Amino acid sequence: MSERTGHAERWERATEWPLMATAVAFLVAYAVPILWPDVGTTVRAVCEVVQWLAWALFVLDYVVRLLLAQHRGRWVLRHLLDLAVIALPLLRPLRLLRLVTLLNVLNRRASVGLRGRVAAYLTGGSVLLSFVAALAVLDAERLNADASITSFGDAWWWALTTMTTVGYGDTFPVTTTGRFIASALMVGGIALLGTVTATLASWLADRVREEEAASDDVLVELRALRREIAELRAGRADSS
Amino acid sequence: MSERTGHAERWERATEWPLMATAVAFLVAYAVPILWPDVGTTVRAVCEVVQWLAWALFVLDYVVRLLLAQHRGRWVLRHLLDLAVIALPLLRPLRLLRLVTLLNVLNRRASVGLRGRVAAYLTGGSVLLSFVAALAVLDAERLNADASITSFGDAWWWALTTMTTVGYGDTFPVTTTGRFIASALMVGGIALLGTVTATLASWLADRVREEEAASDDVLVELRALRREIAELRAGRADSS
Amino acid sequence: MSERTGHAERWERATEWPLMATAVAFLVAYAVPILWPDVGTTVRAVCEVVQWLAWALFVLDYVVRLLLAQHRGRWVLRHLLDLAVIALPLLRPLRLLRLVTLLNVLNRRASVGLRGRVAAYLTGGSVLLSFVAALAVLDAERLNADASITSFGDAWWWALTTMTTVGYGDTFPVTTTGRFIASALMVGGIALLGTVTATLASWLADRVREEEAASDDVLVELRALRREIAELRAGRADSS
Amino acid sequence: MSERTGHAERWERATEWPLMATAVAFLVAYAVPILWPDVGTTVRAVCEVVQWLAWALFVLDYVVRLLLAQHRGRWVLRHLLDLAVIALPLLRPLRLLRLVTLLNVLNRRASVGLRGRVAAYLTGGSVLLSFVAALAVLDAERLNADASITSFGDAWWWALTTMTTVGYGDTFPVTTTGRFIASALMVGGIALLGTVTATLASWLADRVREEEAASDDVLVELRALRREIAELRAGRADSS
Repeated sequence: MSERTGHAERWERATEWPLMATAVAFLVAYAVPILWPDVGTTVRAVCEVVQWLAWALFVLDYVVRLLLAQHRGRWVLRHLLDLAVIALPLLRPLRLLRLVTLLNVLNRRASVGLRGRVAAYLTGGSVLLSFVAALAVLDAERLNADASITSFGDAWWWALTTMTTVGYGDTFPVTTTGRFIASALMVGGIALLGTVTATLASWLADRVREEEAASDDVLVELRALRREIAELRAGRADSS
Repeated sequence: MSERTGHAERWERATEWPLMATAVAFLVAYAVPILWPDVGTTVRAVCEVVQWLAWALFVLDYVVRLLLAQHRGRWVLRHLLDLAVIALPLLRPLRLLRLVTLLNVLNRRASVGLRGRVAAYLTGGSVLLSFVAALAVLDAERLNADASITSFGDAWWWALTTMTTVGYGDTFPVTTTGRFIASALMVGGIALLGTVTATLASWLADRVREEEAASDDVLVELRALRREIAELRAGRADSS
Repeated sequence: MSERTGHAERWERATEWPLMATAVAFLVAYAVPILWPDVGTTVRAVCEVVQWLAWALFVLDYVVRLLLAQHRGRWVLRHLLDLAVIALPLLRPLRLLRLVTLLNVLNRRASVGLRGRVAAYLTGGSVLLSFVAALAVLDAERLNADASITSFGDAWWWALTTMTTVGYGDTFPVTTTGRFIASALMVGGIALLGTVTATLASWLADRVREEEAASDDVLVELRALRREIAELRAGRADSS
Repeated sequence: MSERTGHAERWERATEWPLMATAVAFLVAYAVPILWPDVGTTVRAVCEVVQWLAWALFVLDYVVRLLLAQHRGRWVLRHLLDLAVIALPLLRPLRLLRLVTLLNVLNRRASVGLRGRVAAYLTGGSVLLSFVAALAVLDAERLNADASITSFGDAWWWALTTMTTVGYGDTFPVTTTGRFIASALMVGGIALLGTVTATLASWLADRVREEEAASDDVLVELRALRREIAELRAGRADSS
């Protein structure tokens, strides 16, 4: 049992960097034919192959981690997102979510506080999410006659106005695929916004708490208690 | 008195699943003629009958619970929403709010923490709210000449952009009924957003508190106090 | 000095209900000519007179309270909003903010907890703010050729989409006055939204804290301490 | 080492007011040719010179502070925003962020609590941010044929609808520069909104905590503990 856990940990440590490289390769292979649609047939084929290879590696990693898991049923339940990402080949953009592990790895390497890690996630996650959503929506919308998103500049601008919930309405998806991507982006944007607020709130609450610490009822009570006991000891020493 | 409370509890346990089934039947009977407007007259009539039966069951449940309540005046005040849902037959969509009890029941069955339950409510409530609002607004808007919401796809997309407060403006209600539904959806959306933020904030605050627990002034003081008393006891043992 | 404070308090208690009645009268006199623009000249004149009388009473109240204040300079600084509301006759809608005192009075009468009072303020404040903003923007926009807000229905719908920051863009002010009113409404909407979130967050945090109270480090430590002292006392009793 | 720190502090105290004046001068010189585009060539040239002089002074201040820093590497990392503001001459509007120091200075002069200072930052920061963004976007958009922002009124209105995430869509940037400015404004707006919420949340949480302090488990336990020890001392006094 504990031997298997050891194997699982060693596997995760060993595959960290290769999987990150795979995710980056997948992102590049995904982005190139979308950003430069008039690229040659060879490049297009290479990108296609790289995408499939990356997917195969993700499947391999998933299977190995499943086999090494202590309680396989529970492990599957706790990694449902991983399963969705590799099991739905039609929802290509979702596979790019695997790139979030990159942030995870970078963060574990750096030794910063929780709030620093949250800030890094927010910044990295926002940039990655908007970039991937822009790519995906551009891919879905470009060939539609009514589309208002026809260049990568438009697409990123749209992603930004959506994530911040500004939503001017100058650019918006009109295809069903585009609307699904937009839905995912909105949910992601709300979560990011919520975390920004939460980070600020807890930081501020701590600052205020520090200022008020001196006048804290509990501390006042505790210090009085300590004095009382010190006197008790002193009294005992006198009487003996 | 306590006998009546026992009756009330037994009634609620016994009607939990039947009421849930009734709510689901009502939702289906409400959705079918809206989603497929060219359905036959028979199906339409069946749906109408099912809706009225479901309403009758809700009224019955309300009356029984009122009769079994200990303090009837207070009970009515605490269940004003239940009263509104059954007393206003013209506001059909609002009756669907009864479906939220479904989440309630599912949650009580599962034994998860408060935060897990909140997450389940958020997800379930969002999907249910957007689905019902999309149905209701589609029913209200479809026949209007200026309507920008003419299919269920449009309606759900509108519900999503409204709940997230993105509001592109490509789809919006133009009828008075549609605007009332939109108002309810906006208020619901804000509440959901606020709870998302609150959940994240309290989760994060706890994580930070745990990390800082070791350096907590109060705990430091308490441990010093304990050492002091331990020494006091030891001193007593020596002197006796 | 303390005599003057007593006078101030008695003045505020005595003028509470009359000022509230004045504010309601002002609101009615403000709303009538906007809601029914083709009302007769007599009614219009009466409304105008009522508005000026109400304004005169507010000025009188301000002056009396200023004269009765202990530190007049500080009092003016702490009541800058009151001053702005009565000193700017051109910004008629802002005077209606005086109506918020109505909520204040109603709340002091009821004996509910802080969170209950916050919820009442949120609901009352939202309805009042949206109603007043809708009236003001309708008054400002109606006669403009490019206006998208031409009926009270449009105006309230606009107020709602603005306060919730949804902003479809189907209705928006085009005049400078309308934009100033919109600015005030946006700021008010953000504050309301922020308080909704804050209320939810603090309610949720309390619920979680209650559940975790039993496993609180500080409490565990304290109870151990208490046992220790109980044993110390028992030991003392034995040895004597 | 400590001598150098002393120099750094004296430098910051001495340059506080001159740098603030420089920032104001820069803002005026930046605003004048944008607000009045048909101003004479001489005025335009003077504004250009003032902008360059202000920039030179900011560079000088940066270099001096860098030389006086104890750990230069760490100082550069902690002041990356300062570096970005002075190192990117093409992104003129960003340099105006230096004006935020003005709020910093004003705040340090006033002796108010943390929450008062946060409120002042929110108000001042919002006005400054919207003003600067309006200027910058007007400068970028005015000459574009498709622009919906053609006057300072439009620009400020756009800044407000963007910061509050309302986003009607009646005014929005169409140039790339304008979109970059909008991105910065959106991020700033979210941060401001988050802080508003955080301030309200922590204020409310404190109010509720005060009300509940009397029934706090920890305090109850502590007071019981104190009584116990008092009795212990009393008992000791009796037996001796």
